[in-house]
Amino acid sequence: MAQPARSTAVEPTDAPMVWHGWGDPTQRHGLPAGARSFLEARIGPLGTPRTPVPLEEVRVGPCALDTAARAALIEVVGTANLLDDHRSRVEHAGGKSYPDLVRRRRGEAVTAPDAIVRPADHGQVQRTLEVCVEHRIAVVPFGGGTSVVGGVEPERAGFEALIALDVGRMRRLTSVEPGDRTATFEPGLRGPQAEALLAEHGLTLGHFPQSYEYATIGGYVATRSAGQASTGYGRIDDLVLGLRCATPRGELRVGRGVATAAGPDLRALLTGSEGTLGILTELTLQVHPAPEVEHHEAFVAPSFASGAATLRALVHAGAAPHVARLSDEDETGTALAQIGGARARALRAYLRARGIRRPCLLVLGWEGTPAQVAGEHAATVTALRGRRVVGLGTSAGASWAAGRFRGPYLRDELLDHGVMVETLETATTWSRLGALYTAVRAALTDTLRRRGTPPLVLCHISHVYPAGASLYFTWIARQEDGAELEQWRAAKHAASQAIVDHQATITHHHAVGIDHRDWMPDEVGELGLEALRGVKDRLDPTGIMNPGKLLPTPDAPGGPATRSTPAGPPG
Amino acid sequence: MAQPARSTAVEPTDAPMVWHGWGDPTQRHGLPAGARSFLEARIGPLGTPRTPVPLEEVRVGPCALDTAARAALIEVVGTANLLDDHRSRVEHAGGKSYPDLVRRRRGEAVTAPDAIVRPADHGQVQRTLEVCVEHRIAVVPFGGGTSVVGGVEPERAGFEALIALDVGRMRRLTSVEPGDRTATFEPGLRGPQAEALLAEHGLTLGHFPQSYEYATIGGYVATRSAGQASTGYGRIDDLVLGLRCATPRGELRVGRGVATAAGPDLRALLTGSEGTLGILTELTLQVHPAPEVEHHEAFVAPSFASGAATLRALVHAGAAPHVARLSDEDETGTALAQIGGARARALRAYLRARGIRRPCLLVLGWEGTPAQVAGEHAATVTALRGRRVVGLGTSAGASWAAGRFRGPYLRDELLDHGVMVETLETATTWSRLGALYTAVRAALTDTLRRRGTPPLVLCHISHVYPAGASLYFTWIARQEDGAELEQWRAAKHAASQAIVDHQATITHHHAVGIDHRDWMPDEVGELGLEALRGVKDRLDPTGIMNPGKLLPTPDAPGGPATRSTPAGPPG
Repeated sequence: MAQPARSTAVEPTDAPMVWHGWGDPTQRHGLPAGARSFLEARIGPLGTPRTPVPLEEVRVGPCALDTAARAALIEVVGTANLLDDHRSRVEHAGGKSYPDLVRRRRGEAVTAPDAIVRPADHGQVQRTLEVCVEHRIAVVPFGGGTSVVGGVEPERAGFEALIALDVGRMRRLTSVEPGDRTATFEPGLRGPQAEALLAEHGLTLGHFPQSYEYATIGGYVATRSAGQASTGYGRIDDLVLGLRCATPRGELRVGRGVATAAGPDLRALLTGSEGTLGILTELTLQVHPAPEVEHHEAFVAPSFASGAATLRALVHAGAAPHVARLSDEDETGTALAQIGGARARALRAYLRARGIRRPCLLVLGWEGTPAQVAGEHAATVTALRGRRVVGLGTSAGASWAAGRFRGPYLRDELLDHGVMVETLETATTWSRLGALYTAVRAALTDTLRRRGTPPLVLCHISHVYPAGASLYFTWIARQEDGAELEQWRAAKHAASQAIVDHQATITHHHAVGIDHRDWMPDEVGELGLEALRGVKDRLDPTGIMNPGKLLPTPDAPGGPATRSTPAGPPG
Repeated sequence: MAQPARSTAVEPTDAPMVWHGWGDPTQRHGLPAGARSFLEARIGPLGTPRTPVPLEEVRVGPCALDTAARAALIEVVGTANLLDDHRSRVEHAGGKSYPDLVRRRRGEAVTAPDAIVRPADHGQVQRTLEVCVEHRIAVVPFGGGTSVVGGVEPERAGFEALIALDVGRMRRLTSVEPGDRTATFEPGLRGPQAEALLAEHGLTLGHFPQSYEYATIGGYVATRSAGQASTGYGRIDDLVLGLRCATPRGELRVGRGVATAAGPDLRALLTGSEGTLGILTELTLQVHPAPEVEHHEAFVAPSFASGAATLRALVHAGAAPHVARLSDEDETGTALAQIGGARARALRAYLRARGIRRPCLLVLGWEGTPAQVAGEHAATVTALRGRRVVGLGTSAGASWAAGRFRGPYLRDELLDHGVMVETLETATTWSRLGALYTAVRAALTDTLRRRGTPPLVLCHISHVYPAGASLYFTWIARQEDGAELEQWRAAKHAASQAIVDHQATITHHHAVGIDHRDWMPDEVGELGLEALRGVKDRLDPTGIMNPGKLLPTPDAPGGPATRSTPAGPPG
């Protein structure tokens, strides 16, 4: 039944991502057949294709790094590791959010870092920060550059200059303790690189966010990431055992003794700190035996609510598999449309015969030894008894696994067709999930319909917990020509307001960055922000670390009332 | 096989603990038969019995609360809820650590709070704190008063007066969401009270520290507690979903959305904050279905190292039961001596025939539905195959369960006989566990032997994790007449130094309080302390909240160099 575990065995690469989109453009395959007509039937006629401006036409600002600061940085990292060519600056001009791509594609990167500094180790990171404090240079920590929330936006915040501190040279697996199932990583290892090194020891981290191919270990922890198999292996928060962090005030090391009652957990203060306190330079994480086999299987639930109740039953029975994803009716319909033709018709007829008219796809995935997978699969099947689900077998499940990291490439295709596609994610308790789902869908649909660009809104549950689950929304609509960012902002703000009004979290795994910072007062209260500012004051008193991220500036005009938006020229 | 789950179904009580020792003295049964001769053979001849002074002879300081402050507090809580009688002050003069009991028994309570204030709800707590800020009154949060590390020591730290803020009136289960398996508690519920209320909904918190009968929910979270079944149900850190906290700066509410990436986890900042930031007034925790049955079973391992390897194998196989405890050779020998006589001789012969001369007792316990217990028991037994353990059956396991909360009473018996008994706990990785064990034992043994009071040192593992385990040490020695506290301090300091020298944590579940605060620089570094101070500055700028706990004062004479000791008159 189970197959060799290989759906996450991606070939590691050091190559940078393309500056205007995701990953390696040679991996793009165009829009799926039939996608255009499917979309036009739902969101209206698409315009003419649009392509990004050529790289040389992208505007960056003049380099603000003065001679003394430049020399001091070069003294730390060497001439070869201070980059300030046009391409490098554009490649580090931000992350991969929808607003990032809209601006980059039209040639806007005026806020690009003045230079990219690439330290080799903790000591060089520490000395780089000392130089930056002395010369009043803002520091944007840069790992994979995959942030979709503005987490690596070069916000100068009044500093003389700004560098991206790229940890890409720090990519060693520094130690492994197989008997403890722990491993210590440098921050710049990308997901597949880390997995390849762990595989030599028969181990896995088991962390597979959609950004896995380019995201780094340091980024996982800095953003409090969750991966596609985190129901089985745990969120990154659960895996952090020890951290070494270079801060402007010096080294901070936390995480003694596996489990402790020695005061508040300072690992939790660094996890999710988004580079605002310092740079994570060594990360000791819990790892797991590498799975020998994996098995993905698809089911269909008769409604999203019914499928959610089934997921809750699985987790409460201790029978939730490593991967557990439930698509709503519209996301399932979109997936079926991509299958298309006679196969989709046959499937719909098969389901109709079983009373299911608006199916919701449920993908479950197990990993481990053959015996573990067999045992856990059996437990899940037992827990599914009496629940209204119809099995579709393994091919739909395997097809999800095969395409698990493809989503971001599809976004580039849609952008080429003048289509906005954006995602957001939240989480709440099981008891509040239905109301939250309805409210966010309505906020997105109403807002975009009012603007004359009716959206297709898709949703899935991808992470389940005893107390609740995540909701991951995708919305797709025609771009408003010349008002792309206002359009995006209106939809994002409406959805975010619906989320906080329903006591849900503003982000389940994308982090805060810039896009969510103005909802942080709703999330943790003004006093919660004060607590975080208190920490920042002590570790980063000059405020050079990743300015403008995570924490709304208390006295800035972009406070909660106005819900400010990413820096950059007006859209 | 399994029995109805009732070993934790303790009759709830509101009665305060006896002022000079543990719990309800009518529950004491004297030293076990043969204990005296067993001890004398190991630690030397015991002196004459000693009893605590009568309550009326206990010295407390004059009440420093001025008329205006007293009136302001009474305006908040009412006359009946401000207590300043002699008995109440003595009962709130500290916790239940060994130094606490030594001082209390000889009549020293000069630092007792000026008054005990008992608010009814969050609003009254908040207003009490406002009065205390205004009148410069230090506030010691008081739950069960079970701290064994000086966590509720009345340290005045230069304030005009000091109150104990007793949360004993706040003991409602305010809400339950069975579908989310969550419950919201007020802080003053004692363990058995909380369990009795949850049982009405078929639920359990599953948190059973040895202090369970008197410890409170608020105290569990404030001290980052772990319970005897935490291998199954999780440490309290794992169960905290949401917290409401009254701070001197106002209300702080954290914990939206079940799981989040919205910045650092502020729940982790309050969990383990030991009352230094505010008072937890509402706690939303993950709960579990109440177990229908429980099953405890005993095994014997041929050595502590072999038993530890077996526990590691169980946790790595995902087959560690709810309760997993391994006693070392001396702790097992002490337990066998308590059985005594023909039964113990027969057992030793049985084990010798199986090649085990110095047995190590392993107690495993499963809880759940009959099907769960049967399934998990079978998984454990499978994982035990090929490991060198000998089964002893259920009676020794059930006997552990029956006595699971008796330890503190035995301490009072030993104190009556002039015997020091103290415990400390730590944790580290599996790969470092053996060296840590040896070093702490040697530190305790050498220190006390040099003082002419050779100790009996016992140890067990009580909590296991994928990466490592806890070590819980008990040491027993004759008290040094008139130098009880110096003797204790010498042993405690030697053991603590051994712990930090081995990169282990200074406390696995007892918390920091006063006794461990001078090792906090080893635990989290000076910069880690700075981070915590940054938070405290923002939430408690006047510093009234539980002064002297958790954080060493940076400029006080009792800094890391001198390893200061609890306040109070010289011993």
